[in-house]
Amino acid sequence: MHLVSIDQIRNAMARIENHVFHTPLLPCAWAQDGTDETRTLKLKPENLQSIGSFKIRGAANAVAALTPEQRARGVVTHSGGNHGQGLALAARHYGVRAVIVVPDVAPAVKVEAMRKLGATVVLVPAADRFRRANELIATHGYTLVPSFDAHEVIAGQGTVGLEIIQDFSDVETVLVPIGGGGLAAGVGTAVKALAPEVRVIGVEPELAAETRESFGRGTLVPWEAERTYRTIADGVRLCPSELTFAHLVARLDDIVAVSEDEIREAMRVLAHRAHLVVEPSGALTTAAYLFHREELPPRRHHVAIVSGGNVDAKAYAQILA
Amino acid sequence: MHLVSIDQIRNAMARIENHVFHTPLLPCAWAQDGTDETRTLKLKPENLQSIGSFKIRGAANAVAALTPEQRARGVVTHSGGNHGQGLALAARHYGVRAVIVVPDVAPAVKVEAMRKLGATVVLVPAADRFRRANELIATHGYTLVPSFDAHEVIAGQGTVGLEIIQDFSDVETVLVPIGGGGLAAGVGTAVKALAPEVRVIGVEPELAAETRESFGRGTLVPWEAERTYRTIADGVRLCPSELTFAHLVARLDDIVAVSEDEIREAMRVLAHRAHLVVEPSGALTTAAYLFHREELPPRRHHVAIVSGGNVDAKAYAQILA
Repeated sequence: MHLVSIDQIRNAMARIENHVFHTPLLPCAWAQDGTDETRTLKLKPENLQSIGSFKIRGAANAVAALTPEQRARGVVTHSGGNHGQGLALAARHYGVRAVIVVPDVAPAVKVEAMRKLGATVVLVPAADRFRRANELIATHGYTLVPSFDAHEVIAGQGTVGLEIIQDFSDVETVLVPIGGGGLAAGVGTAVKALAPEVRVIGVEPELAAETRESFGRGTLVPWEAERTYRTIADGVRLCPSELTFAHLVARLDDIVAVSEDEIREAMRVLAHRAHLVVEPSGALTTAAYLFHREELPPRRHHVAIVSGGNVDAKAYAQILA
Repeated sequence: MHLVSIDQIRNAMARIENHVFHTPLLPCAWAQDGTDETRTLKLKPENLQSIGSFKIRGAANAVAALTPEQRARGVVTHSGGNHGQGLALAARHYGVRAVIVVPDVAPAVKVEAMRKLGATVVLVPAADRFRRANELIATHGYTLVPSFDAHEVIAGQGTVGLEIIQDFSDVETVLVPIGGGGLAAGVGTAVKALAPEVRVIGVEPELAAETRESFGRGTLVPWEAERTYRTIADGVRLCPSELTFAHLVARLDDIVAVSEDEIREAMRVLAHRAHLVVEPSGALTTAAYLFHREELPPRRHHVAIVSGGNVDAKAYAQILA
């Protein structure tokens, strides 16, 4: 299977840098414990992107790669979450029509955001979203921009890894959340190409740890949606595709899983100490740094990718209370 | 009266840049309304400093300016808020003892943070804090580092303005909160020296708008503490000194005041759209941008300084709920 190359990620960076915020690395003096002052954490706060997540990167690269004919017809996707917002914004940048097929369980805040960005939102039961998107493609000639299962999307997400290595040459471990695996595939590709000695560790919720199980077995073992939908981390309930999984096997060093309580506690710590509003999926990596030290490589300088901040207002207030 | 110069702010920048996070300017597509796409907002998120506020800048510059004899004896201040944390961290950077006299009404989160940074915290009734600090100075020879009423502190805070002009040459209006006036004095000095055509607008709560009243009269009109303590914006309850007020008169274009409801709504908007946890004082400038457009100069490109994020966890959860 053809994997994304570092050159494709460099090309993505050149294409999208005018549409994407180069997020800083935030030092976290508060994360140092008394036992080992040399163990440090920096955050890569992708929740500070204008759509509140890294997904603008892959979506912008995919739209930038379309032919003029494809742009004239429009794009569609069947992701109700941050990718929908990313595609809506990317399409607006390029003057392209975007239709987003959204599972009706998606947080209201995300649906509203997509509409404000000018996209057409089609709400359907979760199980119908692939069929409905295919109907729209057949009828209108839209181009599908998947949320992770495409080389251009993976290359776009990989720009997160490119920026980390450019900005922090002393990094030793990069922690990246895994849902569909597009971000982890891209970041793993960039980091291992530019700094092969750096460890790249994926992080999943225990309740949606199909990638960790698959990684251990060497073959993809999807979990039922009914099972993964138990986690509050709605951004990472999906299973990798064959394409993203092939990248993860080739480029990740390990995968750790965190509990629901650890995710909630990491959200509180990120609010009170880092002053960031983070959605559950965005807190996975900080939870791994704080609560799974013994499972991580014994290295000093960590970067935790905070993937997004689009959390339902009511749910967030309850977690902080 | 001798006012701080741009050269003093440049010197401060050179001294403190290793101890201070150069905060980015965050674009806010969400802040554009449909009526005028050319009116833009960027945030200067000083809540992302490791102590959660801009106060590290002035404190670090003041400690850096001490003589070796002064450093050997230690420093003291009578600010229970973010300046206490700033001085604690600055003193730790330079290996200097710090004693912080704190009003016993200060948020618990701030007191705990100062202790974790290695400072000695002395809790006293608010009215006793000046007397107690003077006793400690007389007994131990500590040097007082005021929270705003000192040239080196103002110069340190002015580095916020220096960074804004360096990073965003198209800025037309800078919005800055006013409490004791150190930040506004420093930012006004830097901005007017480097880009005199840029408007600098101070923002206060209506319930602690003594500076706006004083600005209109041309003379300092302090309000009683009992009066200013009604605002939830605990970081800006203090009144400027003669020194900071002289800077404000010379360098600010105007001062606007925002209501308590507007402050709370701006905190919610900053959480849900910018994904930043902001204390009430830190939300003043965004409230002015969102709700007081008619009082601001008719300019396009705004920067709102988000001064800090150290808000009591329980109070914050209530505001978001």
